[in-house]
Amino acid sequence: MAIVLGPNQYGKAEVRVVAVDRSTPRHSLVDLNVSSSLRGDFSAAHIAGDNAHVLTTDAQKNTVFAFARDGVGSPEAFGLRLARHFAGSYGWITGARVAVESYGWERIAVGGTGHDHSFRKAGAEVRTAVVTVDGDETHVLAGLGDLVVLKTTGSEFWGFPRDRYTTLAETRDRILATAVTARWRYTDIDLDFDALFCGVRTTLLEAFASTHSLALQQSLYAMGEAVLQQWPDVAEIRMSMPNRHHFLVDLSAFGLDNPDAVYHADDRPYGLIEGAVLRDDVPPAEVAWQGTPGFC
Amino acid sequence: MAIVLGPNQYGKAEVRVVAVDRSTPRHSLVDLNVSSSLRGDFSAAHIAGDNAHVLTTDAQKNTVFAFARDGVGSPEAFGLRLARHFAGSYGWITGARVAVESYGWERIAVGGTGHDHSFRKAGAEVRTAVVTVDGDETHVLAGLGDLVVLKTTGSEFWGFPRDRYTTLAETRDRILATAVTARWRYTDIDLDFDALFCGVRTTLLEAFASTHSLALQQSLYAMGEAVLQQWPDVAEIRMSMPNRHHFLVDLSAFGLDNPDAVYHADDRPYGLIEGAVLRDDVPPAEVAWQGTPGFC
Amino acid sequence: MAIVLGPNQYGKAEVRVVAVDRSTPRHSLVDLNVSSSLRGDFSAAHIAGDNAHVLTTDAQKNTVFAFARDGVGSPEAFGLRLARHFAGSYGWITGARVAVESYGWERIAVGGTGHDHSFRKAGAEVRTAVVTVDGDETHVLAGLGDLVVLKTTGSEFWGFPRDRYTTLAETRDRILATAVTARWRYTDIDLDFDALFCGVRTTLLEAFASTHSLALQQSLYAMGEAVLQQWPDVAEIRMSMPNRHHFLVDLSAFGLDNPDAVYHADDRPYGLIEGAVLRDDVPPAEVAWQGTPGFC
Amino acid sequence: MAIVLGPNQYGKAEVRVVAVDRSTPRHSLVDLNVSSSLRGDFSAAHIAGDNAHVLTTDAQKNTVFAFARDGVGSPEAFGLRLARHFAGSYGWITGARVAVESYGWERIAVGGTGHDHSFRKAGAEVRTAVVTVDGDETHVLAGLGDLVVLKTTGSEFWGFPRDRYTTLAETRDRILATAVTARWRYTDIDLDFDALFCGVRTTLLEAFASTHSLALQQSLYAMGEAVLQQWPDVAEIRMSMPNRHHFLVDLSAFGLDNPDAVYHADDRPYGLIEGAVLRDDVPPAEVAWQGTPGFC
Repeated sequence: MAIVLGPNQYGKAEVRVVAVDRSTPRHSLVDLNVSSSLRGDFSAAHIAGDNAHVLTTDAQKNTVFAFARDGVGSPEAFGLRLARHFAGSYGWITGARVAVESYGWERIAVGGTGHDHSFRKAGAEVRTAVVTVDGDETHVLAGLGDLVVLKTTGSEFWGFPRDRYTTLAETRDRILATAVTARWRYTDIDLDFDALFCGVRTTLLEAFASTHSLALQQSLYAMGEAVLQQWPDVAEIRMSMPNRHHFLVDLSAFGLDNPDAVYHADDRPYGLIEGAVLRDDVPPAEVAWQGTPGFC
Repeated sequence: MAIVLGPNQYGKAEVRVVAVDRSTPRHSLVDLNVSSSLRGDFSAAHIAGDNAHVLTTDAQKNTVFAFARDGVGSPEAFGLRLARHFAGSYGWITGARVAVESYGWERIAVGGTGHDHSFRKAGAEVRTAVVTVDGDETHVLAGLGDLVVLKTTGSEFWGFPRDRYTTLAETRDRILATAVTARWRYTDIDLDFDALFCGVRTTLLEAFASTHSLALQQSLYAMGEAVLQQWPDVAEIRMSMPNRHHFLVDLSAFGLDNPDAVYHADDRPYGLIEGAVLRDDVPPAEVAWQGTPGFC
Repeated sequence: MAIVLGPNQYGKAEVRVVAVDRSTPRHSLVDLNVSSSLRGDFSAAHIAGDNAHVLTTDAQKNTVFAFARDGVGSPEAFGLRLARHFAGSYGWITGARVAVESYGWERIAVGGTGHDHSFRKAGAEVRTAVVTVDGDETHVLAGLGDLVVLKTTGSEFWGFPRDRYTTLAETRDRILATAVTARWRYTDIDLDFDALFCGVRTTLLEAFASTHSLALQQSLYAMGEAVLQQWPDVAEIRMSMPNRHHFLVDLSAFGLDNPDAVYHADDRPYGLIEGAVLRDDVPPAEVAWQGTPGFC
Repeated sequence: MAIVLGPNQYGKAEVRVVAVDRSTPRHSLVDLNVSSSLRGDFSAAHIAGDNAHVLTTDAQKNTVFAFARDGVGSPEAFGLRLARHFAGSYGWITGARVAVESYGWERIAVGGTGHDHSFRKAGAEVRTAVVTVDGDETHVLAGLGDLVVLKTTGSEFWGFPRDRYTTLAETRDRILATAVTARWRYTDIDLDFDALFCGVRTTLLEAFASTHSLALQQSLYAMGEAVLQQWPDVAEIRMSMPNRHHFLVDLSAFGLDNPDAVYHADDRPYGLIEGAVLRDDVPPAEVAWQGTPGFC
């Protein structure tokens, strides 16, 4: 028996780079949070503290800033540039993973017109991209997080088995609320990533709204299926959807009915539904998902 | 010398109530976080553990839900109903403070049309209301928090004194970014609170965008002044604005210039600018501000 | 009627300074989060963007680091040095407030002995100090936050009034849990702050533990009273104590009793008890508390 | 081509159960955050909204509370009871994952003696357990999170390659700080989990303290190797260790030197080192790690 080093990676997490395009008086900006991880032969650093193979995380950070000098483009494209650079930088580096969060900004309206250089942060929702280069393979995951949605009706929950510990009443009408985290893998790496992102996001929202839901699982699957039906460049999609419970409050002690009007939004515990929807004719690519949290 | 009880209050914090209006098939909802505090004679509870004067915080919570049964209206109006109820409930309760956070939801567009009962959470921005009843006085503060704004140009910073510890370079062009927390006090309590909130918020955004800024203090004052000029029902406004620093990255080590293009968004430390703008002919009302954090 | 600038202040928030004492091989460290605010005549900056009076927040940050070079001492002493420096730096600066958070570190035990230079962060609890210089006055508040305590018995709650919205059952035995935030004002500014902090903290813990509680208000008052009785240098103490509810779970549907054994720790809503205990022969000093959040 | 359901799971997350042992006047308590996930055939729920296979997450929550009635024991043992119950509850449920966070409480000392029923929360550190039942396999991962450690000396970093973007200076003495997340897999499921946890935690701390570090990777490996050397029941250990940078502040502009005395603790970006150490004669068990975030 021997004790050995197993899988390992290292990098710089959460480089907060903001790039301004001033090529015209009507500025635009991208606001990113970039994390890079390198994979390869780093045994000597672990076993002997020999850093000859360790491209410093400080250099990784510098690279993010330097590459932003020429413009960033989409988060996916920026991740591709960086991941290819890192994976190609030294022979002992066999792979790189670059994860990008992108935060949206909208122009502030002044007198009804969007201002040239003043912006308001759009919200809590985050666009994500994960690029993985692993030897000859390159994969792109797009995604979003913290997309919080709610239906005030059109959601039921009944027909479940009742074991000894089941006390939940069935319901034909409930509030359904969740915060969608979704990540989808593209079949290609040369795509119009911005247009695709907007399209997939719209599909997810429309499917959530349009599905009469008998289970949050059903909503999740319907959303994934719609994405795969409408967007042929998507190979698979994985979603994590907490069930943010809204409990109807019993007001009878106060002589009041509650006709599905007053709810308590509860924090914990919460249901958590996770699942993947995929095309059965596309080869799997587990390396594309390695290190991406929140998915089964 | 004696040891005595000083100022005190108690209540229920963060009651998360969601109220749905189903009066037509086109639903609407309000999503609130309500905190109540009672003031009065609670000496016996403190000194002897005698709860005869303690209207339970559980009952305060129940009251929030029960009052929501009849509809909520604006956060300010809901706060007024609750604060008056609590302050009038028992002779020994001389005051009540009700603070409300309101979270916005937008209809999900399906095929370009807003859905009847499916919604998307609008963002991280929070609308706030604080109602204080104190004896015969009643005050309403409206407000907002986490309104994150940024200018890519139109911001300078120079002309400051240079003491022994001053190393900062002057700049004629920088990114200016902040997260606005603002609270304003109305001169009246019978107003169209929803319309006023939208109006004041628009004024704040437009003033931030339109002000060529020589100091974040100048932007703060310009925003407050614009609100008081345009909205006669506002007696005073207090703002807290962190300076979210965006530092231009020095790329010269990599043979690159940086023509105001690439910035590092830093977390800590941050500047913090706080100030009030007010009408000099309106009587002050410090009790309206008691317990409202984040203001000098 | 005129629109005028009201109270205002500005400064640098959350300077994270770590100072190591290497004077012997047995190192020690202090880990602080320092925020400074200046008060005085900054009208020109607000109204005209004229920064001639604005000692930059960057210089304030530099000062914190430079002053740490000579050793830090207690958070209160470090705050005093800084606040006096800032308040005395220019004629137009009439006051300064320096707030310090201090994070504890314990030596890692190796073979039962504390290591010379390896440490473990002690916990979530935070020691705080707030020094305010205002003209000729100087005040020191010590304090602590996030001191989470719990009693599994020795807590009752009954005898409260029952209005229309009261449904809570009385209890003769409940879990009592809270996260203590306390701040106390010293009568002097030349004290052994470290010894006093440890003493007051011990008194707070012992009083919480020893008080058979009929109300969280009673516990709060008993804790404050004990501090004032035992520590003559303390003029007043203000506490904020959320009631972190632990609800006994009804297991009867599963054929089980629950003899005060199984509880659900709930997040929101929570009770919030705030109060002050003070000596009636010490002059008040409201300026010492200005800008300190979380207190009525 | 067909669109199909891929891997999926669902459950109840973050059930906050506190169990008090009152069998003697000297009480004890366990404070847990329990999350369960079920795996199996849930296709009908996804595709048709047919919940006949969906053991509700509400029932999962109830089960956690009901099982706590008989005493909890170690987090690992409690997880085993729950996971076996869920996996054995219905034929279509083929696996269950139960993740437990445990929060420590210490007795409050009164007059130097630990109180019978009053406790103080020990800190931010979290003990974790993950039990996975998958068909005939059962695996137990123990672990800890947020164990924040720091060395004021005994850490170097030099000898790294210098690409175009490397500007970092080499150092022979730096502060090394990290927040350790570690999870280790046991070779057996019938062990004294509490004693093992304490032992492994001590080993991790002692190895961190005792290792003269030339790279954070070296510290990570030394910590893992020490655990495997001293604890034969551990098959493998995975660690995630952010490099919490402490930058020496340049005070020369103020006429001051800085002999490794004053540091700025930076938030973002941070290095992130992740790695596994394992025995080469123990069969791998990837299913044990499925859904456990934060590891490569």
